[in-house]
Amino acid sequence: MQNFVTTSLKVLDNQLWVLDQQALPQQSRWLPAQTSVQLAEYIAELKVRGAPIIGLSASLLLALLAEQGAKPAELMEQLKFLRATRPTAVNLMNNLDRMQRCLKMSDYIAALVKEAQNLIAEDRQLCQAIAKVGSQLIEPSSRILTHCNTGGLATAGTGTALGVIQAAWQQGKIQQVWVGETRPLLQGARLTAWELKQLGIPYRIVTDSMAGSLMAAEQVDAVWVGADRIAVNGDVANKIGTYSLAVLARYHNIPFYVAAPHTTLDSQTLTGEDIPIEQRASKEVLGASGSFGEVQWAPESSGVWNPAFDVTPATLISGWILDSGFVTPEQVKAGIFQSHESV
Amino acid sequence: MQNFVTTSLKVLDNQLWVLDQQALPQQSRWLPAQTSVQLAEYIAELKVRGAPIIGLSASLLLALLAEQGAKPAELMEQLKFLRATRPTAVNLMNNLDRMQRCLKMSDYIAALVKEAQNLIAEDRQLCQAIAKVGSQLIEPSSRILTHCNTGGLATAGTGTALGVIQAAWQQGKIQQVWVGETRPLLQGARLTAWELKQLGIPYRIVTDSMAGSLMAAEQVDAVWVGADRIAVNGDVANKIGTYSLAVLARYHNIPFYVAAPHTTLDSQTLTGEDIPIEQRASKEVLGASGSFGEVQWAPESSGVWNPAFDVTPATLISGWILDSGFVTPEQVKAGIFQSHESV
Repeated sequence: MQNFVTTSLKVLDNQLWVLDQQALPQQSRWLPAQTSVQLAEYIAELKVRGAPIIGLSASLLLALLAEQGAKPAELMEQLKFLRATRPTAVNLMNNLDRMQRCLKMSDYIAALVKEAQNLIAEDRQLCQAIAKVGSQLIEPSSRILTHCNTGGLATAGTGTALGVIQAAWQQGKIQQVWVGETRPLLQGARLTAWELKQLGIPYRIVTDSMAGSLMAAEQVDAVWVGADRIAVNGDVANKIGTYSLAVLARYHNIPFYVAAPHTTLDSQTLTGEDIPIEQRASKEVLGASGSFGEVQWAPESSGVWNPAFDVTPATLISGWILDSGFVTPEQVKAGIFQSHESV
Repeated sequence: MQNFVTTSLKVLDNQLWVLDQQALPQQSRWLPAQTSVQLAEYIAELKVRGAPIIGLSASLLLALLAEQGAKPAELMEQLKFLRATRPTAVNLMNNLDRMQRCLKMSDYIAALVKEAQNLIAEDRQLCQAIAKVGSQLIEPSSRILTHCNTGGLATAGTGTALGVIQAAWQQGKIQQVWVGETRPLLQGARLTAWELKQLGIPYRIVTDSMAGSLMAAEQVDAVWVGADRIAVNGDVANKIGTYSLAVLARYHNIPFYVAAPHTTLDSQTLTGEDIPIEQRASKEVLGASGSFGEVQWAPESSGVWNPAFDVTPATLISGWILDSGFVTPEQVKAGIFQSHESV
C-alpha cells in the first residue's frame, strides 16, 4: 500500500502505525499495529480512539494483512474480532461491512487495499463537507463549547465538530472555544486542547461540572459535539457527559449541534435505547492515568459507575450536521434517517 | 482551653490542629495551626475546607491566641485577616462577628474561649437538628446523589447533607449514595467516599459528567447538597457543579435539597448575584494534586475558567433544610430568610 499519514494514523513501508492518544499531549509516540490483537488492545486502552479512526485503522490493518499473505478465511476471522472491539461506535461496523464485501472478490487483496484507501479519502472529504455545512451555522464572535475530541486525531481529516470549529475559525467567526475536560479519560483537556493549541485557536478548559454555570453566565453561544452512533429517530450516542450538556443547553436556550459523517447513522438502530453502551473499568473513575503519570485519589476498592457513552434524545438536538447537509428536527421526525441513501 | 477533637479539628494542650483534607484519603495527617498566616494558607490550599469548619477553626485560633497573650488590637487585626481568607462561605463571617463582640469585653480572653467552645457545641447541635429534619424527607430504599463533601470533615458534627444521609442510613432508608467526584478538587471522590467508607454506607463514585445519564436511567431518587451561603431570596452558593445538578434534577423531576445551618443565611445578601465567587488557580483544572501525587494532563499554559462555587437559584430548589426546620419554596418567597430570627 502507498505510504500516507494523517494526524493519528500512518502507513509506512506497508506497516500501520497509530499515534498513541493516551500519551498525548505530553508525548507524541507512534505505535506499530501489526496484528488484530495488537490493534484491539490499543482500541480497548483508548490509544486508538474516535469513532472514524477506529473504523479506518481496522480497515487499513485488514488490507495490509491481506498484502502480507493472509487468506480470506483468516481475514474474515480478524474482521469479526476487530468488529467486537467497541460496541457503541457504528463507523467501525459500517467500514468493516465494506471491507467484508471485498473479501468475496477474486482479487480480494487489491480490492481490500483500494477500499481501505477509499475509506481514508472519503473520510477526509466527509470532514470537509461537514465543516462547510456546519461553519455556516456559526455566528460571528462565537464562543463554542465542545466535549471530548472530534478533531484530526479522531478522523482522517480535520474532524467533525472540531472540523466545523476550525473552518469557522478560518472564516473569522470564533472568539473562543470552551473545552470540556471530559472525565474520566480527559479527551477534552488532553486532546482537544492539544489540537486547538496546534491550530492557534483560542481556548479555555473547564471541568465538566462548570458547563451549567458557564451557560448561565452567557458565555456559551452554541454547543458542538460529535457522535458515535445516530439512531433512526435521531437519538445520538456520544461520549459520556454529552447528554448532560444537551439538557443544560436546552435549559439555557443554547443551540446544541451534532456533527458526524453519514457513516455514523445506523438504520438498524431504531432509537437510542437500542444502542449498546460499553461499561469500562473502575480505575478510570478512581483516578487518572496517561503519559502524565498514574494517580488514584479515591479510596481503595470504591465502587463506580462508568459508562463510556450516553444517549442524547433527538428532542434535545437543534440539528444534525452531516456531510450531505444540515438535517433539521422536522426532517428527522419525518424519517430522513431511515436509510443512508435518504440523507 | 479544654482538649477536644472532631473529625477534622482538635485542640490539644492549648494548640489547634487541623486534619489535612488535601492528604485524605491516602494519608491521615494532622497539621499544627499556630498562627493566622498558617491557618490562612491551609484554607487557601483547601487543607482546611467546608464552610462550617473554616469558621470554627478561625474562631478557635483567635481564642487560643488570646490565651497565649495576644492583645485585643492585635486579635482584631488577625480577625480581619482571617475574615478575608475565603469570600464565598458566610459562616466564617458570622462566626467572626460573634468573636469580635467578645473582643470588646473586659474579660475578653474568657469570653473568646467560651464563644469558640459555644460555636463548636452549637455546630454539633446544628448538625443533629439538620439530620433530624432532613432524614424525615428521605424515602425508604433511596438512592441519593450528593456533591462535594458535607460530612464530619466539613463540620464539627456529623455534617449537613451527609449528616442527613447518615441519619437516614441509621433509619434503614438508604439503598446507596452516588458520590459526584467534584472536579477540580475531588472532594467527593476523596473525602465523601472516605467518610462513607468509614461509616459503612454503600456508595459508588461517578464523574460529574455522568449525573444526567444517571438521572435519565432513574437511578437517583433525590439530590442533597450543602451550602456556602444562602441569600435572602433563597439562592444558594455552593461548590461548582451544584447548579448543573440542580438544572438536571429539575429536568428529570427529581427533588433537589439544600441542607445547611442557619449560620449559612446571609441577610445582607439579597440575591445570588450579590455573592462573591472566588476564582482559583489554573493548575487545579489542568491536572490534579494531593497526597496521591501531582499530575498535569493538559497542555502547558492552557487557559482555564475556575470558579470555586456557583449559584443555584431558589427556583430550582425543592427545599432548604435548616436546623430550625424544613423551609419550603413558598416560605422563601414570603421572605422567611429576611432575618436569622425568622427561621
